Amino acid sequence: MNKTILLKNRPKGKPTLNDFKFVEEEKPGEKEGEILLKTKYISVDPYLRGRMRDEESYIPPFKLNEPIESGIIAEVIESRNPNFSKGDYVNGMLKWKQFQTSSGNGLNKVNKELAPLTAFLGVLGLTGITAYLGLEKIGKLKKGECLLVSAAAGAVGSVAGQIGKIKGCRVVGIAGSDEKIKRIKEKFGFDEGINYKTTDDLKKAIAEACPDGVDVYYDNVGGEIMDAAMANINKYGRLIICGAISLYNKTEIPMGPRHEGTLIKKSVLMQGFTVRDFVKDFGPAINHLSSWYKEGKLTYSETIVEGFDNVPQAFLDLFEGKNKGKMIVKV
Amino acid sequence: MNKTILLKNRPKGKPTLNDFKFVEEEKPGEKEGEILLKTKYISVDPYLRGRMRDEESYIPPFKLNEPIESGIIAEVIESRNPNFSKGDYVNGMLKWKQFQTSSGNGLNKVNKELAPLTAFLGVLGLTGITAYLGLEKIGKLKKGECLLVSAAAGAVGSVAGQIGKIKGCRVVGIAGSDEKIKRIKEKFGFDEGINYKTTDDLKKAIAEACPDGVDVYYDNVGGEIMDAAMANINKYGRLIICGAISLYNKTEIPMGPRHEGTLIKKSVLMQGFTVRDFVKDFGPAINHLSSWYKEGKLTYSETIVEGFDNVPQAFLDLFEGKNKGKMIVKV
Repeated sequence: MNKTILLKNRPKGKPTLNDFKFVEEEKPGEKEGEILLKTKYISVDPYLRGRMRDEESYIPPFKLNEPIESGIIAEVIESRNPNFSKGDYVNGMLKWKQFQTSSGNGLNKVNKELAPLTAFLGVLGLTGITAYLGLEKIGKLKKGECLLVSAAAGAVGSVAGQIGKIKGCRVVGIAGSDEKIKRIKEKFGFDEGINYKTTDDLKKAIAEACPDGVDVYYDNVGGEIMDAAMANINKYGRLIICGAISLYNKTEIPMGPRHEGTLIKKSVLMQGFTVRDFVKDFGPAINHLSSWYKEGKLTYSETIVEGFDNVPQAFLDLFEGKNKGKMIVKV
Repeated sequence: MNKTILLKNRPKGKPTLNDFKFVEEEKPGEKEGEILLKTKYISVDPYLRGRMRDEESYIPPFKLNEPIESGIIAEVIESRNPNFSKGDYVNGMLKWKQFQTSSGNGLNKVNKELAPLTAFLGVLGLTGITAYLGLEKIGKLKKGECLLVSAAAGAVGSVAGQIGKIKGCRVVGIAGSDEKIKRIKEKFGFDEGINYKTTDDLKKAIAEACPDGVDVYYDNVGGEIMDAAMANINKYGRLIICGAISLYNKTEIPMGPRHEGTLIKKSVLMQGFTVRDFVKDFGPAINHLSSWYKEGKLTYSETIVEGFDNVPQAFLDLFEGKNKGKMIVKV
């Protein structure tokens, strides 16, 4: 049989297990030109929360009672498509199913020799590309500048910080536990870390960690952490608004201080970043990331949860910060 | 004698006449290399409110008990500088004094043949350059797009809207009276106007006036009008944050809805714009504006108040929207 996970309800506020539904289907058969895929690793990501809303965004919303999809590594177990062979591993946006067929469009073969399979969902996949292109296209990070990263121990944040160090910047990370702060400094080479949960005055803590101010802020969380970063932004500063996990489960648009005054006074740029806008730049991004990885300049953390049945819970755990780096379910 | 206007107090909230002080000094004499200037026209502008605060910004704050300065057209009445002749008119940042000396640095001679003197404080001066370069450098306005302008009947807004029409865009303006709406449509050629004071639902009014959404928003006001523009912004929209008159007199940072979500979903760019960041582009900007003016494609409104003694009141009236277009005091 073939287990599939459907979106049962559009979550109100924080999603719950009850928003997902498991169904069992017949295992599909591939047609001429298709491949049959067995799911190996499923990426669960905060941005999926946005697709659970019935509203216009950069990708269409999930439909109710249809399978959810995300980044997946799958094994080709049958092939009637000359571009793929049995035993190949592929990476792409696929459905939360144990087995599925595909025409192969939009799938990339994975080079198992380069890195472990899960790396292609993280540092060498969309996560790494997001960190790299956000800094490149919006941050325009230059040697000697100060880079501040929120959710710094997370999948995107930890890569962004390492790229900052490769580029010769001072890099400061914000995260939510002392263990995460230790990790970003010891494992990922951040110069300084701030535990926002135990800091009374985040604005002051950033000022101390970034004595020359913040030139580029890589934002994965939004909300009050972004406000504190903005309070320390330098003239001509750039804010890469890549994620807003602090806002995703809100049922109304939250209020916060207006930033127009700071934007004007300091000629600040603030721009929403969606990696899908830069598909044509994925190739060069992957080349940079792969080279750095091979040279040992780029490492990663991941949390691997076992079992297809645990996909929804792994997704929910993202909003509790239970993951170390990239959250992945091994099927 | 020589009347001078000093900043007496740093205003708390809305400035009052009591924040200014008139003093009389001896009329100065020019030294070798200097010119003696007689003030003819003084520009009063909302951004001066920012310089009255004791805080870091794109230009240093005014000092207490020192003369305020702004854009001024003055006549050269004595010259011991070979670059200037008696009878020349110059334009530059000068002090609120009836007479003053200058080395000539930073002053530009005005071509009286091209346009009336006051135009060089407005459409052919910093105001026009602000409108032009904001659209050019941040808005990157393209033919066929929809441009929304706030404070559309104001000095910068009215020029921005006319440039939008010259570039072949749909242009919609927001202003605070039916008379202003009539003017932006009839005099400045805006396609549509919205009186925010008599509109119940500004978000809906913008949606109706911009049926294909807003591509570029030229913001001179900030606050709730900006929120309503953001609610109608298109994918890849750009917000030129040029002024925030609605916030200038606030004593605390006002709260408003957080825009991070929209920035991400629609890949929106929001950038603070200060014309002084682009001094090297002033030449080409003036050339474009002058050509359009000569071709009759660019017109302007101005409110001219008579008398040096009325400079402070004219400045205060800006915050009541009492000006039609550029507010100027004739000395």
